Amino acid sequence: MKIKEEIKKYKLLVEEHLGKLLQRDDVPEELLKSIEYSLLAEGKRIRPILCLQSFLLFQEDLEQILDFACGIEMLHTYSLIHDDLPVMDDDDYRRGKLTNHKIFGEANALLAGDALFTWAFELMLQNRGHLPQERVLLACLEMAKATGPAGMVGGQYLDMAMENKEISPEMLENIHALKTGKLIQASVSTGAILGGAQGNHLESLRDYGKNLGLLFQITDDLLDVRGDSEKTGKESKKDLQRGKATFPKIFGIAKAEDIAYLTKEKTKRNLSFLSQDCDFFTALADYIYTREA
Amino acid sequence: MKIKEEIKKYKLLVEEHLGKLLQRDDVPEELLKSIEYSLLAEGKRIRPILCLQSFLLFQEDLEQILDFACGIEMLHTYSLIHDDLPVMDDDDYRRGKLTNHKIFGEANALLAGDALFTWAFELMLQNRGHLPQERVLLACLEMAKATGPAGMVGGQYLDMAMENKEISPEMLENIHALKTGKLIQASVSTGAILGGAQGNHLESLRDYGKNLGLLFQITDDLLDVRGDSEKTGKESKKDLQRGKATFPKIFGIAKAEDIAYLTKEKTKRNLSFLSQDCDFFTALADYIYTREA
Repeated sequence: MKIKEEIKKYKLLVEEHLGKLLQRDDVPEELLKSIEYSLLAEGKRIRPILCLQSFLLFQEDLEQILDFACGIEMLHTYSLIHDDLPVMDDDDYRRGKLTNHKIFGEANALLAGDALFTWAFELMLQNRGHLPQERVLLACLEMAKATGPAGMVGGQYLDMAMENKEISPEMLENIHALKTGKLIQASVSTGAILGGAQGNHLESLRDYGKNLGLLFQITDDLLDVRGDSEKTGKESKKDLQRGKATFPKIFGIAKAEDIAYLTKEKTKRNLSFLSQDCDFFTALADYIYTREA
Repeated sequence: MKIKEEIKKYKLLVEEHLGKLLQRDDVPEELLKSIEYSLLAEGKRIRPILCLQSFLLFQEDLEQILDFACGIEMLHTYSLIHDDLPVMDDDDYRRGKLTNHKIFGEANALLAGDALFTWAFELMLQNRGHLPQERVLLACLEMAKATGPAGMVGGQYLDMAMENKEISPEMLENIHALKTGKLIQASVSTGAILGGAQGNHLESLRDYGKNLGLLFQITDDLLDVRGDSEKTGKESKKDLQRGKATFPKIFGIAKAEDIAYLTKEKTKRNLSFLSQDCDFFTALADYIYTREA
């Protein structure tokens, strides 16, 4: 499988749909402009693509789930905008562009984040794809849990609270599982739920999503240490300078690389329980393992 | 009807349930503490009470809807915490207590707001009351729209963007309709939807909720001008000093009082289309019209 081409194809699909969704005339113009700025900034769109691909394992008609997948990208973007604020990580650049608050001001950025969050749920609940109602309810609930105080927001809190503190390897894994892991996992599982997956199929994809999220975070940490800021669009070693706990910092680079390898292998074992064609998911894990940005 | 006693009774019910909901062990302790600080601060609980009362017009078992009603109070509290932040209204006091960020810091307050928002949707979607799924989906969607960029967040944006600017009476009404009106309206309509209301019944309650929200805001503006800060727990004339557009500022006090009266009368006409016993809703409009805090 040519994973890069495959990602590119679905990335375009997502971005085209995001562009359509931004055509709203019931939102204050300047607010919409700041939302658009962050939402259409260059991004990998990994989360919505995972949702689409997971749905495709069980159903064919992608139109039914495009709104939901784009809602996930909105949730991700909201978390980035709030994370970049001066009171949080205080980042001036994101994906190679000035961060939202650097262009539109902090109050606007705060509200753009709040707006994206709500908009995401509006989209996901609207169910224009006419999927079975019980699946939509279940998927929306899974997404709310994944992004809430026992999920993404809880992880952001711990990440901030633990800056410059000694933390255990278990705590580090927990922070990452919450901060980035839960949303990636839910991107996979909600696609499957909406497609009608149940039982072992759903559980195996949940496990895959969990391990993929961890792999994504370890490789992100490794890129922060050895990455090329021109490729990543972020300042190198910023996490380390800020006193954030990272895998290389806690385990050392060699051990962190080992964990990345083992986690990648785990994703493949998770997929082995599925009878569907999982080429995309296998290739994606390899791709993330070897990524340079 | 003794409206004060009635409000007190349901306020206690809401606060007792909020207390139970806060017993979570899957949320970082300090984050939960800051959420609790704002959620259990003295408040009128008007929004959840509206939801409960509206449900009661069609159904009897309040247990079924307590989670949902408390979710609404969480949405309201999230908006207050974010609104009070230095980059927004920069308020030091709320309901007579130091604001969240004054106690826990800005980053924590930002995340406490984000957490409450998500927690609210988690609760509402969870549907532990086993209400019909199509009603839950519809009610959650209505709530997402009411609090989103074309609702509450849009109103907060406009309110901020229009500070110290000349605005028309129509614009003022629009800001208020979005910023406070939509959530109050949705508190009434979601209770009705979850109770099974349809057609004219639902529409009349929507209209009532819209007018009640407007009445609430005009009387709030009037209290800001002539109110006793000991009773309101807010600094008097703060809105005016800040250059916020208010009804007394745009129309003058006497005309603003007239609009309040007419709006109160409208709420009664809205209720006249319902065959249910609407004593609570009538008395509530009178109570808000004459409120001192």
